[in-house]
Amino acid sequence: MKLITLTTDFGRSEYVAQMKGVILGIAPKVWIIDIAHDIGAQSVIEGAFVMMTSVVHFKDAVHVGVVDPGVGGSRRAVVFSCKRGILVGPDNGLLGPAAHKLGLEACYEISDTKVTFISKDHEVSDTFHGRDIFAPVAARLAQGDIVPQDVGGCIRDFVKLDIMDRTVSSAKATGMIVRVDHFGNMITNLPKTVLNNIPASGIIEVLVGKKRMPARVVRTYSDGRPGELLVLSSSSSFVELSMTKGRATDTINAYPGDIVGINYLPASKKAGKSRKSNPKK
Amino acid sequence: MKLITLTTDFGRSEYVAQMKGVILGIAPKVWIIDIAHDIGAQSVIEGAFVMMTSVVHFKDAVHVGVVDPGVGGSRRAVVFSCKRGILVGPDNGLLGPAAHKLGLEACYEISDTKVTFISKDHEVSDTFHGRDIFAPVAARLAQGDIVPQDVGGCIRDFVKLDIMDRTVSSAKATGMIVRVDHFGNMITNLPKTVLNNIPASGIIEVLVGKKRMPARVVRTYSDGRPGELLVLSSSSSFVELSMTKGRATDTINAYPGDIVGINYLPASKKAGKSRKSNPKK
Amino acid sequence: MKLITLTTDFGRSEYVAQMKGVILGIAPKVWIIDIAHDIGAQSVIEGAFVMMTSVVHFKDAVHVGVVDPGVGGSRRAVVFSCKRGILVGPDNGLLGPAAHKLGLEACYEISDTKVTFISKDHEVSDTFHGRDIFAPVAARLAQGDIVPQDVGGCIRDFVKLDIMDRTVSSAKATGMIVRVDHFGNMITNLPKTVLNNIPASGIIEVLVGKKRMPARVVRTYSDGRPGELLVLSSSSSFVELSMTKGRATDTINAYPGDIVGINYLPASKKAGKSRKSNPKK
Repeated sequence: MKLITLTTDFGRSEYVAQMKGVILGIAPKVWIIDIAHDIGAQSVIEGAFVMMTSVVHFKDAVHVGVVDPGVGGSRRAVVFSCKRGILVGPDNGLLGPAAHKLGLEACYEISDTKVTFISKDHEVSDTFHGRDIFAPVAARLAQGDIVPQDVGGCIRDFVKLDIMDRTVSSAKATGMIVRVDHFGNMITNLPKTVLNNIPASGIIEVLVGKKRMPARVVRTYSDGRPGELLVLSSSSSFVELSMTKGRATDTINAYPGDIVGINYLPASKKAGKSRKSNPKK
Repeated sequence: MKLITLTTDFGRSEYVAQMKGVILGIAPKVWIIDIAHDIGAQSVIEGAFVMMTSVVHFKDAVHVGVVDPGVGGSRRAVVFSCKRGILVGPDNGLLGPAAHKLGLEACYEISDTKVTFISKDHEVSDTFHGRDIFAPVAARLAQGDIVPQDVGGCIRDFVKLDIMDRTVSSAKATGMIVRVDHFGNMITNLPKTVLNNIPASGIIEVLVGKKRMPARVVRTYSDGRPGELLVLSSSSSFVELSMTKGRATDTINAYPGDIVGINYLPASKKAGKSRKSNPKK
Repeated sequence: MKLITLTTDFGRSEYVAQMKGVILGIAPKVWIIDIAHDIGAQSVIEGAFVMMTSVVHFKDAVHVGVVDPGVGGSRRAVVFSCKRGILVGPDNGLLGPAAHKLGLEACYEISDTKVTFISKDHEVSDTFHGRDIFAPVAARLAQGDIVPQDVGGCIRDFVKLDIMDRTVSSAKATGMIVRVDHFGNMITNLPKTVLNNIPASGIIEVLVGKKRMPARVVRTYSDGRPGELLVLSSSSSFVELSMTKGRATDTINAYPGDIVGINYLPASKKAGKSRKSNPKK
């Protein structure tokens, strides 16, 4: 029994089901699991993060990712062969972080039209390669009809996207928001270990864009007071910004790709200084 | 292994799962695939279009549709027997377009209460025939316990809904919006071949309700400039209105069932004339 | 073939898929059905109602519930053994109503770390016990590797939550809203039998918070006039408030846990009296 997972920015729509129909038409016994379809429209960073943190929970699977602003253009379609799974999707950086987590072995460009064949009536659309290219390839890989090197030539210049770009010092940490979840929590790419450096008060300063806000470091969501900005370790071991009885993302107005900083200096002190130097505010 | 697909306007809710519980209680080995549950509430046109364009991607399945404003009233429940599948749902036009795509053979009215039996404790509700009538019938059909003619008498006067009503001439095309997808793209019932008539500039005029707007014909989403209204061929080979970095439906304020027109005359020219003849505007 | 169902307040997100990955890693042949993931964030009442009304539609399954505001705190994790199924989740009242529907036999506290083991690399997070504790326990129960008493000691003082608290007299009924569905319908915990007492006019008075509104008792959604507040029997046999062509919850501004009352006296009469005694209003 082979597994295929799907991660897309299709939202709740029939496009996901059309992919499943194509998959089950070729490989009627595979199981299909939806990872997430609520990736922000065309947010390759968010899709890459969700795939990276989710594929590791599956023992062996073919993972399809479709966050594909360049569909129908010149971007290539690729398959990553990894130690603990296979990835299929566009060559735009979406799959790389997950591929590294699964033990990247090689990347192949999908170029053989035999592996994408659906039926003689089926026309490849310019806007939906998820259904017309990635789905049939994933189905054949999951079923064992083909192996990754059958899809086309091996390439080394696949698009790299560093979603783990960040700097951590003893005074501050700077990274970016990589995911906004259903609750409006903002997950950053900062490792949870930066929370080891917090001051005794538990209050730190968070910077997003031009905003500076005090925030309290807590262990669980239930430790917060309503409306308070919280900093905690996410279930994927990254620093997460949350708000009890509220949506942190709506208050802070920030999205995947935005820079986020954490100053370990107590926010109250800095806020006091800041107010003095801007007396008219 | 038989497949059942579900298309409803239930959104994200437990109602879909209650249907699945009933199905698996009768037919524990069928696979169930969600086509879409984000059909606009009670939008039979949108449901009919989504089913029509999605069922064709499944090789053999029992397709259940539940967009059912008349539930509990006098509308009949029907089963369509087709060359490449079976359809189950309300007799309100929802299933017809999909039935024709799958090769319509006959329509039967569900009237035998044996085929809808769930358990002696289970009471048929007036508001949820998806669970109490369509689900048990679909489960028995998928499992092969019954064939379509077992559900009741053959009928010819089932409700017809022409979601492909449209006129195409050498100067313009008029049809309707049949689907608004998750991205706010508006899919029309105009065939993509009307885009063959576009002027050299690639700029045409789109009419929705009383609004006239210039729009640019492109091949892929990535060809557009931010905020520009785009016209392209959808993944189902229909004309689609889209907006780069925006939601076309929110800007145009139009929904499934609304009339849409395309004038092949360059919009810039017409817009100029229009402005001259309405100098006070 | 064993079934696992999932009910959470995770919305559309990868967290559900991470639970599925853990489950399938331990029990590759179980089937997983999503009951609902749109429970209002941290609304234990709504989750308890959705589970109670949905689990009864499954013949035999392990039902996992994760609406868990106290995750990582001192609340216990529990397994309910029932005549017609097993329930797994937090000890906060979420599972009790469903357990009683399935024939509650015993409750066990999850305390043996062998039953929650995922892999030696996997660290239990403080914020996601759904994936790290409930999923592995449910997978082992569904697969038959363990029975409920293997998870830990039997407890009797599990948290009780009475979501069926209500009073019904010949003149009025008082209960609470327990679910707001995708359409904005508000489902109450009042039994549909209270609708047997309606006056000949079919018009009654509904009270939610400080609001009093006339409402019409109907049999199906299609019996209403646009904008009219309707009272009908829900598909789960509870009293439901609905609005034709509108969202009742948005107009009334009420949520799960809010008190709702029904006066059988004609609303027009009461409204008249009320206006007289408050002439300045």
